[in-house]
Amino acid sequence: MIDFDFWSPTYIAFGKGKESHTGGLVRRFGGTKALLHYGGGSAVRSGLLDRVKSSLSEAGVAFAELGGVKPNPRSSLVDQGVRLALDEKVDFLLAVGGGSVIDSAKAIAIGAANGGEWRRFYVGREVKVKPVIPAALPVGVVLTIAAAGSEASTNSVVNLEPENLKRAAGGDILRPKFAVMNPEITMSLPPFQTACGLADMFAHLCERYFTPTKDVALSDNLCEAVMRTVVEEGAKVMADPSDYQARANVMWAGTLAHNDVCGAGRVQDWASHGLEHELSALYDCAHGAGLAVVMPAWMEYVHSADDARFARFARNVFGVGAGETDAQAALDGIVAFRRWLKSIGMPLTFAELGAKEEDIPLLLKTLNLCGNTLGGFMRLDENDVSAIYRLCV
Amino acid sequence: MIDFDFWSPTYIAFGKGKESHTGGLVRRFGGTKALLHYGGGSAVRSGLLDRVKSSLSEAGVAFAELGGVKPNPRSSLVDQGVRLALDEKVDFLLAVGGGSVIDSAKAIAIGAANGGEWRRFYVGREVKVKPVIPAALPVGVVLTIAAAGSEASTNSVVNLEPENLKRAAGGDILRPKFAVMNPEITMSLPPFQTACGLADMFAHLCERYFTPTKDVALSDNLCEAVMRTVVEEGAKVMADPSDYQARANVMWAGTLAHNDVCGAGRVQDWASHGLEHELSALYDCAHGAGLAVVMPAWMEYVHSADDARFARFARNVFGVGAGETDAQAALDGIVAFRRWLKSIGMPLTFAELGAKEEDIPLLLKTLNLCGNTLGGFMRLDENDVSAIYRLCV
Repeated sequence: MIDFDFWSPTYIAFGKGKESHTGGLVRRFGGTKALLHYGGGSAVRSGLLDRVKSSLSEAGVAFAELGGVKPNPRSSLVDQGVRLALDEKVDFLLAVGGGSVIDSAKAIAIGAANGGEWRRFYVGREVKVKPVIPAALPVGVVLTIAAAGSEASTNSVVNLEPENLKRAAGGDILRPKFAVMNPEITMSLPPFQTACGLADMFAHLCERYFTPTKDVALSDNLCEAVMRTVVEEGAKVMADPSDYQARANVMWAGTLAHNDVCGAGRVQDWASHGLEHELSALYDCAHGAGLAVVMPAWMEYVHSADDARFARFARNVFGVGAGETDAQAALDGIVAFRRWLKSIGMPLTFAELGAKEEDIPLLLKTLNLCGNTLGGFMRLDENDVSAIYRLCV
Repeated sequence: MIDFDFWSPTYIAFGKGKESHTGGLVRRFGGTKALLHYGGGSAVRSGLLDRVKSSLSEAGVAFAELGGVKPNPRSSLVDQGVRLALDEKVDFLLAVGGGSVIDSAKAIAIGAANGGEWRRFYVGREVKVKPVIPAALPVGVVLTIAAAGSEASTNSVVNLEPENLKRAAGGDILRPKFAVMNPEITMSLPPFQTACGLADMFAHLCERYFTPTKDVALSDNLCEAVMRTVVEEGAKVMADPSDYQARANVMWAGTLAHNDVCGAGRVQDWASHGLEHELSALYDCAHGAGLAVVMPAWMEYVHSADDARFARFARNVFGVGAGETDAQAALDGIVAFRRWLKSIGMPLTFAELGAKEEDIPLLLKTLNLCGNTLGGFMRLDENDVSAIYRLCV
């Protein structure tokens, strides 16, 4: 186990009707006027947004609002949100939505607290030392999809226009103050979106589980516990979208998959996320779907670096590979992982994603490794990345 | 799964030499003058206290100090601490020790912020509605034993003199702001104390795991993950007290066993803790040792209320009972649990603990059920409690 600092101070209000607590929570964490940020569509149609507004009004919290966030959130809307936040003098950002809405709100929270500046904190691998974010407005979340884990994470990813570069900012200051999580709200999600969420949270666990760090029994066991839950409860959710209990287990799993309780004390990987971000930036595909294509390909490419770990994954998460050699069990685990992804309706190839083999040089260019390597489990150079992309074809 | 609110904002600084960060952490969480509270003995002899003082001085944090905390911390020392805290006008409580020191510090933190009043917030079952603690000084921890989980919990238990009643206070306000956790510090603990810590943290998991709540797949899996870690890494720690990695896994497990990440969404039990507190109040035995006696006896008495759950415990934590009926597997699991406790040197009977069968009426009297029941898994009345105590004989 390596030394670590762990801090996950997000207040979680979990259960039926908890959106009625939103106004009180904004107050509790110092907000008097909020910018209500959302996507549109389902949050409006379902009446959720109205319930949230009622709760804000009851608690005496004023608000401005800005909808229209798209998946892979765009920098132009962030700019608009920052102007609005400054004009309206809001002191709180309230995101009603999933990862894209939350990440967009985090960017606005940075801009509103730094005289409009936010973009320079969103960087890629070309920057050696990431800039420290000096201030940000507090962010609260009413979560509508179990997926990204951004409701309790330190990160934000935004699509920087006009180049469509996905770039990230990070820091303890971006951890939401609270997350309201009502599993009922997720019941009306289209199956594809639900499945993308499952793939995303499973990938967050893989990025932590596949590590070169030895002697991390506790977080190994924790990762496997959450992975098994995502696989088993995820299957229930796909079979019956209105299964409240399965929805609840999956929703809480999405948070624990990414608040870093499963990653404490480990070198993490994050190569698959790096490879996927280029796909969703170029093709505007769903992040979870992109991960479903990239993650097993990455596994195929790297497993022989530590077949024992992949065999453990196969046996303890998917229950395959007992009595086999580690090398064989490792392969069986990857097959089982792909089978599970397919069973929930995820794509497995570039073609299903709308991605093209001939774009691989372009993906490598925007990935922009700058001669460095990617990943903590196995260090990948440009040739490795290219080979993994080709395995997706 | 039942609705829940979860908040675990304690900042964890984990690893070798992290005590040198103490002063900076006190500053970060608003402290300028701390009351340094500790037991004595090892924290002094090992040089830890000097290192903590150096760190405070380097960060410009002034301090007063009060040592002498005993296991099952006494109200008289709390009174002394409150007077000192008020006289010295400290604005922070820094506990250097284990559960007893932390709980004593929490009591002082209450008294210092409420004009000396703290005792009325420590109550037992005779009080229907627990008093809300209006204020408390912030508390920080430098942890010296993996056991009580008080470093990230909402609770404090103090031995109220002269009656020697163990009574508890609780509330989010008592969560420590930070916990410094260096596993190296725990290497020099006597084996008996290390084992008491293992028993305590395992009991914290049992109190959450044995629940009447259905459909809690995620926290079931989490509980089992941490339990297995305590059993397996605990055995390594007992075999080689200087095994850093096993110490680290056990230390982090002790925190996660009690910060409630394993209890979210579940009705919890806590009957065994109730029964044990009367033992350590009367006999001044170690809390973990008392739990080692009470917990398996409780299991024997209640398992038939849900043999399937006890069978799952047997199979998933101790790897026994495969292919057997749930009823038989449940019994095998209890045997395996007792065998593990014995293997780490824990007592299993009243006699080994210094407790006497003839005191059972006295234990019942101080437990003071007031006609109510105890426990969430199975509701226990006085006859049940008496029967469980007799199973310990």
